[in-house]
Amino acid sequence: MKFIAEINVMPLKALLDPQGKAVTQSMKKIGFSEVNSVRIGKHITMELEAADKEKARERVNEACHKILTNPIIEGYEYTIREA
Amino acid sequence: MKFIAEINVMPLKALLDPQGKAVTQSMKKIGFSEVNSVRIGKHITMELEAADKEKARERVNEACHKILTNPIIEGYEYTIREA
Repeated sequence: MKFIAEINVMPLKALLDPQGKAVTQSMKKIGFSEVNSVRIGKHITMELEAADKEKARERVNEACHKILTNPIIEGYEYTIREA
Repeated sequence: MKFIAEINVMPLKALLDPQGKAVTQSMKKIGFSEVNSVRIGKHITMELEAADKEKARERVNEACHKILTNPIIEGYEYTIREA
């Protein structure tokens, strides 16, 4: 079966997010004064084969740990759906 | 009222996504042979003030057009919720 995982990888809340900070300031300068904060991370769409949703979940978790995120500075969350 | 917008900015489907391609290949090399494709974009969390949800939606749309995305190579989608 084919599954699609939608993964969000974000800088941990405790850490500074220089890119988000820069965008927040730029937005204020061009007239978006109502924007309080912006945080920027990655969105990853992954298509994979798996026997069932549980197996797909396991593999996505493993992929996040091994290659897609740096757990020292990033957190992640994901949803999985059948393709 | 405070709102939080969750925005996904992805490379358009018609375009190559070199970063996603590279990750797909790396994953196959380290044992994730079941992964068919990976596409990588940005995930943006924005906190903003607005009179109501409709106004918030308008401003988020405007922000996406003016500063957060490059419509020639990227598409976006978002959800808005009360903070």
